[in-house]
Amino acid sequence: MPKQIDETHDPKLESWVESANDPETDFPLQNLPFTGMLVELSDDDGPASDLTIELCVLLGDMMIDINALAEAGQLNGLIPELPELLYVPTSAVFIPSFRAALRKRLVALFGVSVDRGVREKISKDCLVPADDVQPLMPFLPPPDYTDFYASVHHATNVGSMFRPDNPLLPNYKWIPVGYHGRSSTVVPSGVSVRRPVGQTAPAEEGGAPGFGSCRMLDYELEMGVIVGAGNEIGEAIPIERAEDHILGLCLLNDWSARDMQKWEYQPLGPFLAKNFATSVSPYIVTMEALAPFRAPRFERPAGDPAPLPHLDCDRDREAGALDITLEVFLQTAEMKKRGLSPHRLSRGNFKDMYWTVAQMLTHHASNGCAMRPGDLLGSGTVSGPTRDSRGCLLELTWDGDPWANPPVKASGAERTPIELPSGEQRKFLEDGDEVIIKGYCERDGFRRIGFGECRGVIKPSKKG
Amino acid sequence: MPKQIDETHDPKLESWVESANDPETDFPLQNLPFTGMLVELSDDDGPASDLTIELCVLLGDMMIDINALAEAGQLNGLIPELPELLYVPTSAVFIPSFRAALRKRLVALFGVSVDRGVREKISKDCLVPADDVQPLMPFLPPPDYTDFYASVHHATNVGSMFRPDNPLLPNYKWIPVGYHGRSSTVVPSGVSVRRPVGQTAPAEEGGAPGFGSCRMLDYELEMGVIVGAGNEIGEAIPIERAEDHILGLCLLNDWSARDMQKWEYQPLGPFLAKNFATSVSPYIVTMEALAPFRAPRFERPAGDPAPLPHLDCDRDREAGALDITLEVFLQTAEMKKRGLSPHRLSRGNFKDMYWTVAQMLTHHASNGCAMRPGDLLGSGTVSGPTRDSRGCLLELTWDGDPWANPPVKASGAERTPIELPSGEQRKFLEDGDEVIIKGYCERDGFRRIGFGECRGVIKPSKKG
Repeated sequence: MPKQIDETHDPKLESWVESANDPETDFPLQNLPFTGMLVELSDDDGPASDLTIELCVLLGDMMIDINALAEAGQLNGLIPELPELLYVPTSAVFIPSFRAALRKRLVALFGVSVDRGVREKISKDCLVPADDVQPLMPFLPPPDYTDFYASVHHATNVGSMFRPDNPLLPNYKWIPVGYHGRSSTVVPSGVSVRRPVGQTAPAEEGGAPGFGSCRMLDYELEMGVIVGAGNEIGEAIPIERAEDHILGLCLLNDWSARDMQKWEYQPLGPFLAKNFATSVSPYIVTMEALAPFRAPRFERPAGDPAPLPHLDCDRDREAGALDITLEVFLQTAEMKKRGLSPHRLSRGNFKDMYWTVAQMLTHHASNGCAMRPGDLLGSGTVSGPTRDSRGCLLELTWDGDPWANPPVKASGAERTPIELPSGEQRKFLEDGDEVIIKGYCERDGFRRIGFGECRGVIKPSKKG
Repeated sequence: MPKQIDETHDPKLESWVESANDPETDFPLQNLPFTGMLVELSDDDGPASDLTIELCVLLGDMMIDINALAEAGQLNGLIPELPELLYVPTSAVFIPSFRAALRKRLVALFGVSVDRGVREKISKDCLVPADDVQPLMPFLPPPDYTDFYASVHHATNVGSMFRPDNPLLPNYKWIPVGYHGRSSTVVPSGVSVRRPVGQTAPAEEGGAPGFGSCRMLDYELEMGVIVGAGNEIGEAIPIERAEDHILGLCLLNDWSARDMQKWEYQPLGPFLAKNFATSVSPYIVTMEALAPFRAPRFERPAGDPAPLPHLDCDRDREAGALDITLEVFLQTAEMKKRGLSPHRLSRGNFKDMYWTVAQMLTHHASNGCAMRPGDLLGSGTVSGPTRDSRGCLLELTWDGDPWANPPVKASGAERTPIELPSGEQRKFLEDGDEVIIKGYCERDGFRRIGFGECRGVIKPSKKG
């Protein structure tokens, strides 16, 4: 059992916040993800005001306002250097010792054995129903956003479509392949996403490309990794210490315009096909909370090379992968109108990734690239080995299977549409469709924890 | 003559700041580029202090401290809405009307006909010798950084090396190809650049890749475009208005690790080969200052397609390209020791780019991607049609010429080293080498203006 498991993971812990004890909640006392709440800073001199994000932690369906807790004197002595703590900036979560101490303090304050006077005071002053505010990922937009490609299943499936003769390039099993994304368009869950317009490949070779609304709009199920501690430019992050630089994870939807992507992506990679929007869920589930949910590192098939020494170490092998079940649901406008529940499109697991998050981070900084606190790393589409664990429509509605034995070639001519409970079909997303990503961790002997949801509705293209 | 030329471009304008009248200066009264000065904000309560960048404008060899000028009351009435102006944040330069009014006011205040009393006061209180401070690009790091690939000469040369059978991909003449870069490692001119370490292609097919210090370290001569006004997510920037969204230009060096690039760049584009450092010069030469230095848009060879309508308009055709002469110099440690001047490696011109800066910006936002004030766009390597106008060592020391008629194939086996005045040779950069990029504009009937320098010395790889 990993050393990081302690009394804060005890499955018997219960909270006096009743919703945290619901067996189906993603947010019991054992989770305590960081989130944020938008508040208005009024200027004393007049009507001018600024918006700022205040640090919160979610418990059941209640937002714990960390600064109200500090004002109430409940965070005093958390760190020996700060006997009195009156304000906690969101950036405090980047300090591992603060994070660990806060987790223990919250477990004590919100556990059932807390003093009744304290409970009454913080219940009155420090809790806000999550339904009354918009929980928000505190680090938006991130300083930098990078997207990886760490599922070998996804890379092989997509590679089979884009490069039938050469699906998996020779570098794939040596390098956690990644590329830079766009920070300005990382948006919170719930913000609707406008269908992009752009260029698409000419109908015949040598002809003019099309320009118009995307016709192959897709989602990509990913995890987002939030960097805690950065590194100076010119310094690497050794694999042995990589997890110490990670604050936690969230859900991420890397919206993709497949028709635009195919035309633009060579030779410098995806650009406008991806940078119109990336959605992230509002809660950062910390590495501390995830400690019980580790799984063996992805088992490389016989014949695959071992990672190079700078991407491998005992700690990474022992820490292993993250066992997070991930599901994608689709609800069309028609389904909403008829009261039909969202339809599950796939279920996969983050432990099926070829590379660990530590390997991705270490690779990223191996050339001296500076990481900053709050940087966002997308994992790449999480696809598993089976058809029902494919993390995007491009894979789900494609009729090939390079993982079958012998491999089944895609005809390429047609896609197999997904049949929805409304009788509708989908090859790609239509306007009004809502994509909902969910994630959770379950393990015998531990309390289930989850990531909440990452949602986005497609709105029509902007006309001229 | 473009409408944007006015009395601030009058070549007869002279300043009482003598160095601004030197015929060789890059910074006469007709230029007035924005720059910044790092100042310490002392906390009244004690020793804690913060660094902040204060807005300056360079004139000759003097920094005009814009806030000192405001405090001295010299910017009052600049904008009707603000009769009294006591502090000017760097972000003020993103407002076109402010920028235009400030330019006119500075020409008046620093022109020879200004009142003697005013001159004595601002000379004493508002000028700092540039040698006494470190002039700094005010928007570092940029919110987002994107790098384009807009020279067809560079794309064809590099394509010939990386893909001999397929140098220029079918999308090149339709799309201003670009990709996202890394914001965290955009560094000011003068900061030395550590040679990166990373993976390189296996010596034989199927073998293990190498991991170590880059052995093919290169520079790339580029222009940086700084965005002034942004756009909301989901909204495009029409080509007719694109130049209104551009603040100005600087020099940019997109340092590149060619051996790492070749191994990693497929299928998602360059990543660690580029993101270890990008250097920018400290001065933003505004579009207003560049107004006299426009040239016809690049003439597409017969048979090339016209740009699609959303990337074309009368205004862009009339405004045309930017006529900026660009030079790269190299000075090795040995040359410095022996007192030998930097050696010029190439001279090209920014007007040779296949795409205009307006086309790049419009393409970037065409899918609704949000641009933010201060965003940085690299133009891509500026290479011209001749051998001596190639903007990087990869092209300069390569012995092929796809532009010759008939094309001369590269042998691929060997590179032709550059001979330096010290007797040294270079195929790629060595530790201790300094790369110096310079840029300037000249035109009959106008005062020469320039961009200053973008410098960087290579320091050795970090061991272990």
